[in-house]
Amino acid sequence: MRILVINPNTTASMTALIGECARAVAGPGVTVDAVSPQSGPAAIECHVDDVLSVPGVVAEIARGEQEGYDGFVIACFGDPGLKAARELATGPVVGIAEAGMRTAAYLGRGFSVVTTLSRTVGHARDLAEEYGTARQCLGVHACDIPVLALETDPTARARILRACEDALAVDGSDAIVLGCAGMADLCHELSAQLGVSVVDGVAAATTTVEALVRMRLSTGKRGEFAQPPVRTGATT
Amino acid sequence: MRILVINPNTTASMTALIGECARAVAGPGVTVDAVSPQSGPAAIECHVDDVLSVPGVVAEIARGEQEGYDGFVIACFGDPGLKAARELATGPVVGIAEAGMRTAAYLGRGFSVVTTLSRTVGHARDLAEEYGTARQCLGVHACDIPVLALETDPTARARILRACEDALAVDGSDAIVLGCAGMADLCHELSAQLGVSVVDGVAAATTTVEALVRMRLSTGKRGEFAQPPVRTGATT
Amino acid sequence: MRILVINPNTTASMTALIGECARAVAGPGVTVDAVSPQSGPAAIECHVDDVLSVPGVVAEIARGEQEGYDGFVIACFGDPGLKAARELATGPVVGIAEAGMRTAAYLGRGFSVVTTLSRTVGHARDLAEEYGTARQCLGVHACDIPVLALETDPTARARILRACEDALAVDGSDAIVLGCAGMADLCHELSAQLGVSVVDGVAAATTTVEALVRMRLSTGKRGEFAQPPVRTGATT
Amino acid sequence: MRILVINPNTTASMTALIGECARAVAGPGVTVDAVSPQSGPAAIECHVDDVLSVPGVVAEIARGEQEGYDGFVIACFGDPGLKAARELATGPVVGIAEAGMRTAAYLGRGFSVVTTLSRTVGHARDLAEEYGTARQCLGVHACDIPVLALETDPTARARILRACEDALAVDGSDAIVLGCAGMADLCHELSAQLGVSVVDGVAAATTTVEALVRMRLSTGKRGEFAQPPVRTGATT
Amino acid sequence: MRILVINPNTTASMTALIGECARAVAGPGVTVDAVSPQSGPAAIECHVDDVLSVPGVVAEIARGEQEGYDGFVIACFGDPGLKAARELATGPVVGIAEAGMRTAAYLGRGFSVVTTLSRTVGHARDLAEEYGTARQCLGVHACDIPVLALETDPTARARILRACEDALAVDGSDAIVLGCAGMADLCHELSAQLGVSVVDGVAAATTTVEALVRMRLSTGKRGEFAQPPVRTGATT
Amino acid sequence: MRILVINPNTTASMTALIGECARAVAGPGVTVDAVSPQSGPAAIECHVDDVLSVPGVVAEIARGEQEGYDGFVIACFGDPGLKAARELATGPVVGIAEAGMRTAAYLGRGFSVVTTLSRTVGHARDLAEEYGTARQCLGVHACDIPVLALETDPTARARILRACEDALAVDGSDAIVLGCAGMADLCHELSAQLGVSVVDGVAAATTTVEALVRMRLSTGKRGEFAQPPVRTGATT
Repeated sequence: MRILVINPNTTASMTALIGECARAVAGPGVTVDAVSPQSGPAAIECHVDDVLSVPGVVAEIARGEQEGYDGFVIACFGDPGLKAARELATGPVVGIAEAGMRTAAYLGRGFSVVTTLSRTVGHARDLAEEYGTARQCLGVHACDIPVLALETDPTARARILRACEDALAVDGSDAIVLGCAGMADLCHELSAQLGVSVVDGVAAATTTVEALVRMRLSTGKRGEFAQPPVRTGATT
Repeated sequence: MRILVINPNTTASMTALIGECARAVAGPGVTVDAVSPQSGPAAIECHVDDVLSVPGVVAEIARGEQEGYDGFVIACFGDPGLKAARELATGPVVGIAEAGMRTAAYLGRGFSVVTTLSRTVGHARDLAEEYGTARQCLGVHACDIPVLALETDPTARARILRACEDALAVDGSDAIVLGCAGMADLCHELSAQLGVSVVDGVAAATTTVEALVRMRLSTGKRGEFAQPPVRTGATT
Repeated sequence: MRILVINPNTTASMTALIGECARAVAGPGVTVDAVSPQSGPAAIECHVDDVLSVPGVVAEIARGEQEGYDGFVIACFGDPGLKAARELATGPVVGIAEAGMRTAAYLGRGFSVVTTLSRTVGHARDLAEEYGTARQCLGVHACDIPVLALETDPTARARILRACEDALAVDGSDAIVLGCAGMADLCHELSAQLGVSVVDGVAAATTTVEALVRMRLSTGKRGEFAQPPVRTGATT
Repeated sequence: MRILVINPNTTASMTALIGECARAVAGPGVTVDAVSPQSGPAAIECHVDDVLSVPGVVAEIARGEQEGYDGFVIACFGDPGLKAARELATGPVVGIAEAGMRTAAYLGRGFSVVTTLSRTVGHARDLAEEYGTARQCLGVHACDIPVLALETDPTARARILRACEDALAVDGSDAIVLGCAGMADLCHELSAQLGVSVVDGVAAATTTVEALVRMRLSTGKRGEFAQPPVRTGATT
Repeated sequence: MRILVINPNTTASMTALIGECARAVAGPGVTVDAVSPQSGPAAIECHVDDVLSVPGVVAEIARGEQEGYDGFVIACFGDPGLKAARELATGPVVGIAEAGMRTAAYLGRGFSVVTTLSRTVGHARDLAEEYGTARQCLGVHACDIPVLALETDPTARARILRACEDALAVDGSDAIVLGCAGMADLCHELSAQLGVSVVDGVAAATTTVEALVRMRLSTGKRGEFAQPPVRTGATT
Repeated sequence: MRILVINPNTTASMTALIGECARAVAGPGVTVDAVSPQSGPAAIECHVDDVLSVPGVVAEIARGEQEGYDGFVIACFGDPGLKAARELATGPVVGIAEAGMRTAAYLGRGFSVVTTLSRTVGHARDLAEEYGTARQCLGVHACDIPVLALETDPTARARILRACEDALAVDGSDAIVLGCAGMADLCHELSAQLGVSVVDGVAAATTTVEALVRMRLSTGKRGEFAQPPVRTGATT
């Protein structure tokens, strides 16, 4: 089984980290490749970043489809391009916000999301609503660290830990969901420090795709998610 | 007052039609210009079309912003790129699905949407939910005419009329919302034939932007819709 | 085009103020007349006030209908008699809570309402729910100034400003909606002081009615909003 | 214990019928008086009727309050004036739509409402939503008999029975709620014919008020439902 | 009329208290018997307690059914076994959370629940959702007194009073609902101290069952709540 | 890794079938044991069956916990005892309705559930609501085959296939969820015949538990799902 994990931003070090975290949870016999688009935003921190990353995501799905991947992960917490990817791919496609929040829903009454910038909180709440986890999503908390500073700011880990502690206290939640693929490597450390489960969406999406492929389940192709119509002579 | 109406697809004849319909409802002293992106899908009929049209929409907003337009309309019933546009524009930005459905909400208990292809019904329902019109949106009905065939298929008008009649009968609705910018020119004729108000989203969005500008109202810039962050050396 | 703006309370100075604010946003060629019922409560600050104002509102709609007005505004934030008015009027009828909140929904993720008395907060929330703006209505805040004191209390403006500042801070909202027609004249001043858009429902409803009339849209008359049944010999 | 049942319309024969049905379920030692306003609509079949009946309802509540009634029933399925009545009354006030639907909610997964005219269906659904019974209210069905014809049309009972049978078949419901006070006397006969519980709102509201009084429970008076403010020199 | 009140826990002193409180509100001519299962948890303070109490509840319903009781109350705020009981009983079955919250919904805009242990708060909120009272349930507050300590802890009353005061202040509610059958005897005393209605679910459920029986209303038996299927040779 | 799959009914042949289906999707190195309670209903087809199965489920969880299982599956589509099991188990516990419906939510816009008896439809819809999949659950369809007849009735497969075909046509869904553990072995055959993904909850729950264990995620133990309180001298 081969899974393609697509990091929608173009920061190579983050793609490498995401790949490692995905491989760490993949089962025996599962190959995980992590890629990012050839061009696009270096980080995804607002709606403009989000939409400008999508053509690259779509191109990687198309390429992966030709190379025969069995399933796909979109590894940015905004799940950019998820529905478009489901039209193009034969195998299942899972976003990390989608999988992170649905996975956390198995762990008790509710979870808190801890994310990067405050301006993304509204989008995370929209996704919680769309994925049917609005009642379980007890709060979305920003630590106000830019995405690319997660790797470079020496205070980042401490501030994320503090945001998690605050979230647990305020929300009375049973688990934490990390709201950025760039935090994927922190989940076991944070979990040990906090004493609750900490869900990394990259891991959650990877195991979900693996399970879907193993059960031979994929996107329905009879309606909304059929292959896009072919238009002769169209501009694109 | 100058309003820029952006047709997210690249079909020039549709851009012209949209511009006419917008100008027909604009008040005295309001200039309306209609444009479409330089490249992108010729029609928007699925999620892939939708996301691939957005970089062009964003570019037109950015250009319009530099040229000093007071407000913007995004003239495709999927409202592609609406939130990203709100980050970039100083003046208000309104989508035609958003304005079409909210306008119809003033006309009674509920409305029916009549749109082009069945595969877009789910997206229209998502937008009804997002815009707070889910209870009023009593049904979304497809006439299964491709977008570009609206201009060329001689049976199109009759089939749209029949879809509207069916929608009114099944849903018991008080008004019709046309679910495609390419139907903008049909609303008065259909209204006369059906005996109920027929809402064209292009007209609704244009009058909404005009009203917002006149009232000096625009997108809040303190949080989610502030200008995108500037990243030194970022790929995009 | 002639629009009749009905102030449901019988305080003439407030009717004059409402008329001025409506005319200030009406387009060229639009005549706006402001009236109030011949009898009824001097202010509308509770459910009893609300229901006792409605027969007067209904009478003004009936009179305006005979005089050929093209559309109607009900200018009290409780929107008293709105559905009954839609049965009687040929043209569109819009309430200021309805238009204020739906207009604010175009301005970002969410808005705060700032209103007069605490006891009206529940009704404002009910209206937010009914109009499909419950998710966007991030808070309803009372400044606890009686309606008629808005004109006479020299501290009123300062207290309203403070309530708006508090609302923005607590709710993280993108805009303010003024929750009383008696505040209509404050919106530009407050907007300048607060740095966010401030929506006056009177202006929002007036521009909405103007737009509906221009687009030839009105209440559906096939069902719930048909003219009331005529009963021979009935008491009323 | 003395309960005042207010028929909001001015048709005396219906007031008499409502009084009988209320007394039939009142417990030993409970006096039930049924009254109607001195003027107002003869039947309540649209929004205009509804709002024009309310000043009369409010006057009867005020009179009943002075006469020391322990609790009040508003006996029209639109529950006109319910919130205003709660401001004025010391004892509990219950509407028949409210009590009819909440009572039916104890009887299984869901109920169907059978009412008079189609144009009132939307209002019944709004009330189901407001009272927290939207999920249980599986359908609202009109038999299209005008209110006053319930007493005079010899086919009325048969048509109501058929509407109930259709409702049970279509909705798969566990009970019927009668959507008009004028049907109050039919509930046992219909129940015997249909083989399911048939809820008359007049009975449901009367027993609910009796129970509330016995438990010494009444409307909270600390906020929204405090006595209306007194305004010196106000018009009303 | 004979009503059987079942205390799902096996603490006899609590059963006696519940019986007294139920009898205190039952009308003339109504016999109320209070029982508890022969074995099961001594108190119900978590999900395991809840589910282990249910076989006993079901057995008491079956016994009561054979003894010809007209209706049943399940007197634990988690309403354990309510749906199963409705399958077995001919007469109506009402839970105290269900009746307590629906009864409080007649008393104004919203109520607060004051309950025992924090760990039951989520379940109380689930029930508020299920019973259609989620919007009215403005808060669920735990006083963190174990169920059995309600009778023995001399500070219990003072702490419950303080929890009620806090709830009213924070939630702005119109009434209190007591979230445990073991608090049933406190409602009048608390009401006098707090100045708002305090709803005891035992009283609310008893008067509700009495009213349903008087109106000859009971669970629909055509579908979900028909008698359980008989399986020849099945283990149970 | 060792996973315990608990069939809440006591029919050994069904337990064997469930065990096979679980093992078929478990990854390398995962041991799956399937058990059923020592006593309880032979099939679970109504609320009484459901609640009477739960003490046995709870006992098996307690036994499995002592034997060191890493995670648990509850293999009945009503998910009986799921919350109680989460209090007792250290590792994750997943129900097959929960996992079946959440898994299907990854496969498109919506799914249909095909289940056994009509009387269980309401419970399945309640679970869809609780698990956040109400919008995706486009329909619940009964084939009206008793649970134990799934193994013995030679027409069962054909009738289930037809129910699936009807569901896809009526609901326009993207996938089918099988609403009974006794159908677990049919999913690949049905999928081949229907041309859409068919989700077996047993497989979905088993892969979900495996993934949770691999990611070291489990139920939060700080609040609602902490171990049950210990009561000295309590009856149970």
